Amino acid sequence: MQDKLDQLKSILAIISDLHGATALLSWDQQCYMPPGGVVDRGNQIGTLSSLAHSKFVSEEVGSLLEELKPYAETLDPESDDACLIEVTDRDYQKSINVPNEYVAEWARVTTVAHGAWEEARANNDFSHFQPHLEKIVDMRRQYADFFKPYTHVYDPLLDDFEPGMTTAEVQEIFTGMRPKQVELIKAISEKPQVDDSFLHLHYEDQQQWEFGEAAITKFGYDWNRGRQDKAAHPFTTNFGLGDVRITTRVDENFLNTALFGTLHEAGHAIYEQGVAAELERTPLGSGASLAVHESQSRMYENLLGRSYDFWVHFYPSLQERFKTQLGNVDLDTFYKGINKVEPSLIRVEADEATYNLHIMLRLELEIALMEGKLKVADLPQAWNDRMEDYLGVVPATDAEGVLQDVHWSAGILGYFPTYALGNLVSNQLWEKINLDIPDLSSQVQNGNFAELLAWLRENVHRHGAKFKPQHLVKRVVGSTISPEAYLKYLNDKFGAIYEL
Amino acid sequence: MQDKLDQLKSILAIISDLHGATALLSWDQQCYMPPGGVVDRGNQIGTLSSLAHSKFVSEEVGSLLEELKPYAETLDPESDDACLIEVTDRDYQKSINVPNEYVAEWARVTTVAHGAWEEARANNDFSHFQPHLEKIVDMRRQYADFFKPYTHVYDPLLDDFEPGMTTAEVQEIFTGMRPKQVELIKAISEKPQVDDSFLHLHYEDQQQWEFGEAAITKFGYDWNRGRQDKAAHPFTTNFGLGDVRITTRVDENFLNTALFGTLHEAGHAIYEQGVAAELERTPLGSGASLAVHESQSRMYENLLGRSYDFWVHFYPSLQERFKTQLGNVDLDTFYKGINKVEPSLIRVEADEATYNLHIMLRLELEIALMEGKLKVADLPQAWNDRMEDYLGVVPATDAEGVLQDVHWSAGILGYFPTYALGNLVSNQLWEKINLDIPDLSSQVQNGNFAELLAWLRENVHRHGAKFKPQHLVKRVVGSTISPEAYLKYLNDKFGAIYEL
Repeated sequence: MQDKLDQLKSILAIISDLHGATALLSWDQQCYMPPGGVVDRGNQIGTLSSLAHSKFVSEEVGSLLEELKPYAETLDPESDDACLIEVTDRDYQKSINVPNEYVAEWARVTTVAHGAWEEARANNDFSHFQPHLEKIVDMRRQYADFFKPYTHVYDPLLDDFEPGMTTAEVQEIFTGMRPKQVELIKAISEKPQVDDSFLHLHYEDQQQWEFGEAAITKFGYDWNRGRQDKAAHPFTTNFGLGDVRITTRVDENFLNTALFGTLHEAGHAIYEQGVAAELERTPLGSGASLAVHESQSRMYENLLGRSYDFWVHFYPSLQERFKTQLGNVDLDTFYKGINKVEPSLIRVEADEATYNLHIMLRLELEIALMEGKLKVADLPQAWNDRMEDYLGVVPATDAEGVLQDVHWSAGILGYFPTYALGNLVSNQLWEKINLDIPDLSSQVQNGNFAELLAWLRENVHRHGAKFKPQHLVKRVVGSTISPEAYLKYLNDKFGAIYEL
Repeated sequence: MQDKLDQLKSILAIISDLHGATALLSWDQQCYMPPGGVVDRGNQIGTLSSLAHSKFVSEEVGSLLEELKPYAETLDPESDDACLIEVTDRDYQKSINVPNEYVAEWARVTTVAHGAWEEARANNDFSHFQPHLEKIVDMRRQYADFFKPYTHVYDPLLDDFEPGMTTAEVQEIFTGMRPKQVELIKAISEKPQVDDSFLHLHYEDQQQWEFGEAAITKFGYDWNRGRQDKAAHPFTTNFGLGDVRITTRVDENFLNTALFGTLHEAGHAIYEQGVAAELERTPLGSGASLAVHESQSRMYENLLGRSYDFWVHFYPSLQERFKTQLGNVDLDTFYKGINKVEPSLIRVEADEATYNLHIMLRLELEIALMEGKLKVADLPQAWNDRMEDYLGVVPATDAEGVLQDVHWSAGILGYFPTYALGNLVSNQLWEKINLDIPDLSSQVQNGNFAELLAWLRENVHRHGAKFKPQHLVKRVVGSTISPEAYLKYLNDKFGAIYEL
C-alpha cells in the first residue's frame, strides 16, 4: 500500500508546486507587477489553477484514494498518513463537484472584478463594481449548488475556509455575542475618551519599518525563510514552508497601521513557518483553517502587541526612534491610546472591542445576498443601515463603506466570519497558555517570546492542516469554539482602561 | 481549418502561461527570494517546465501540425498564421527528437556540473570541474547525433539559439574579422592610453539608479509594462508582452557597471515591449534569436550609450548628479574614458574593440571540443595560448581564465557566438537607420529617440520570432549577417579617439 501512497504523494507534490507558483504570481501582482501585466497575469493564474484542479480531480487520484481509505482506517487516526488520506479525500470529494470550466471562468471573473473594484473605490462609484459583484454572487450560488443537498446555501462557502463548520454554528455564536459587544461599546461611550492624538503625528516610514522588523524578529519570525514587502492591502503568503512572506502598508501619519499590521501578518507567517517539515508539498502543509490562522495573527497583534506587558519591553525602543513624537508620552498614556475604543467606518482600523461587529455586519449581508433576500444593487444602503444600528456611524461615501474591503472583488464570500472566530480562538488558546506558562506575563515584559513560540509550535503550528478547526481547538483547550474567553478578555481589559 | 488552428493556439497559450510563470519564479529567485526557498523553488520550476514540455510534445500537437502544414502553404508566408505553424513545427520536430531519458539525465548532469564549477572557480581548481565538462561535451555530441545527418557536429547546438544558422557561416564571418580586430588593438596599444580614473571614484547607488532610469525613460522603455530591480547577474525577462522587466547591478566604485548594464538590458526589454500584441501567448511572442536580441541591447548600450551624440545630451545631467566626481571632467575626456580600449581577462568587462575576440576564442574552443580535436584536459592551456595570441594577456589563474563564465557548467554550448553576431547586426542595422533617418545624430544630441524607436518597432520589434535571424536581417538591410559595418564602425570610432 506504501507505493499507492507514494503515487498519491507525488501527484500532490506537483499540485503543491502549481499552488506555490500561483501564490507567487499573486504576491508579485500585489507587490511589484506593473499595470500592463494584468491581463497576462490573469491568464497565468487561470491556467495554473486549472491545471492544478484537473490534476487533482483526475480518475487516478480518485482510485488511489479508494484504495487508500480502508488502509487509513488501520492507522493511528492522528498519524500524518491517516490525516493526509482523510484531508485529501475530503478535498477531492469537494473538488470533483466543481467542473474545470467553472474554475477557469471563476479565475477570470474575479481577476477582472478586482480591477473594477479598485477603480470603483478610487472613484467612489459602486455602480462600476455592481455588475461584477452580481456575477460573483451568481457564480457563488452556482458553486453552492454543486454541493446540494446542503442545510444552508452559505454552508459550502463557509466550509471552504472552516472545514466542518456550519452556518448555524456560526450564527449561534454570533447571535449570543452581538448584544454583549454592543453593550460594552455603549458603556465605553459614556466614559471620558482616552487621548490618542500622539498616534496621528508624522512618523517616518523607514523608522516604522525597522521597528516592526525588530519586534517580529523577537517574536521568532525566521528571515531566512521569509521577507517583508509593501502592499496596499497587507497579506501573508507562502511558496512552500521555506519561503513565507509578509506584506505591510505604512502610513506616515498614523503609527498603528504598519505597527499592528506587521505584528498581525507575522502571526500568520510564524504559524506557517512552524508547520512540520514532513507535511511539505502535501495538502497538510499549511494552517488548519482561517479561524485558526487568525487566532495566531490576532494573538501576536492584540494579545501581545496591544498588551501592557509587551510595551513594558518595547516602549523604550519605540520612544528612542520617535523622540519628538513620543518623548513626553508615558507608557500608560501610550497603552491607553493604542487601545482607544471608538466606533469607526473601516474594519481594518477597528479596535478590538468594535472589530467583531464589522464582521457580523458582513456575515449578515453575505448570507442575505446568497439567500437572494438582498439584491447587490441594494447592498450600499443595507450596509449603511447596519453600520448605524451596530456602531452608530454611517459612511459618507461607498468608498469608505461597502467598497472598503477587497474580499468580495476577489469572490471571497464565507471568509469574513473566520476573522471573528479567530478572535475567539486566540483567547481560548491564551487562557490555556497562561495556565501552562504561569510567568508568561513577566517573560513578555522581558521580551522573551521563546517559550510561547515553543508552546504554539507544539500545540498548534506543527500539526498544519491535519485536524479540522473544531477538533484542533478541542484537542488543545478541551472545548470547541466559543465566545466566553473573548468576552471576558474584552470586559476585563476595557473595564480597566475605561474604569467601567 | 480555422478550428484546428484555434485548438493549436489554445494549447500554445497554456504553454506560454507556464513559461511566463516559470520566468517569474526565476526572476523572484534572483531578485527577492530568501535562502530558505531554494528547494521548493527548484521543485516548482522543475514541475512547470516538465508540464510545459509534455503539453508541447503531445500527440495532439503533432497531429494538429500535420493537418495544418499543408494549410500554411496556402497562406502568405509572412502572415502570422503561416509563421506560427512553421515555427511551432520546427520547435516540435526538434523536441520530439530528444528522448525523455536524455532530458532528465541532462538536467541532472548540468545541475551537478554547475555546483562543481562554482567550487572549482572558488578554489581555482579546473581538475574538479573537468570530469563534469567531459560528460557535458559527451552529452552534447549525443544531442547533436539526434539530429543526424548534420553538416557539422556544432550545427544542432547553434541552431537552438540562432535558428537556421550554420557553423560554416559563423566561421567564415569570424575568420575574416579576427585579424582586423587584432590589428586594430595592436595599433591602439602603441598609442598613449586615455584616462578613465574618474570612472573609478565613489558614485552613490541611488543617484546611479535614477540616472539610468531617466536615460531609459528617454529611450522609450515603457514603465507601465516593466520595472527595474537589482540582481547579482543582470538579465531581462518577461511574463508576457505587458510585463517586461530588467535587472541591474550597481557598483558604487565603478560608474560603468550599472550605467551600461541598464542601457543594455533596456535594449533587450524595449525589443520585447515592441513585439506585436497579436503574437502574445504564442511561440512568436518574443525576440527572433539571441543575436537579434543582442543587436538591440548592444545598440542601446554602445551605439547610443557609448556615443558622443548621446553624451552631448546626457552629460550635463550626469555631471549635475555627480558634481564632485565629474565637475572638472569635460565631455571629451568623459567620452574617451568610457571608450577606453584595454585587452583584459574577463569577457563581461571587455570594451567594444576587444569584446569579439573573447567570443571567437570560446567559439573555436567549443568547436574543437565538439569535433574531438581538443581534450577537455587540455582546455586551460588552449585557453591561455589563445588569450596571448588574440589579446596579448594571459590569465594568472584558471579562475580568471577558462573557469570565468557560467555557460559551460550549465551545458550551454553554441550560445557564445550570438554575442558577437549581435554586435555585427547592431551595426548593420545602424547603417540602415542612419540612411533612413539622416538627422539621427542631431536627434540623439537633443535627447530625441522617438523616431529611432519607431524605426526599430517597424523593422525589427513587431515581427517577434516570425522570421529566422538571417531572413530578418536580409529583409531589413538587404544582406545577411556580415562584419563590414562593424569593422568600419570600430576603425572610425577608435581611429578618432586614439588618433590612429
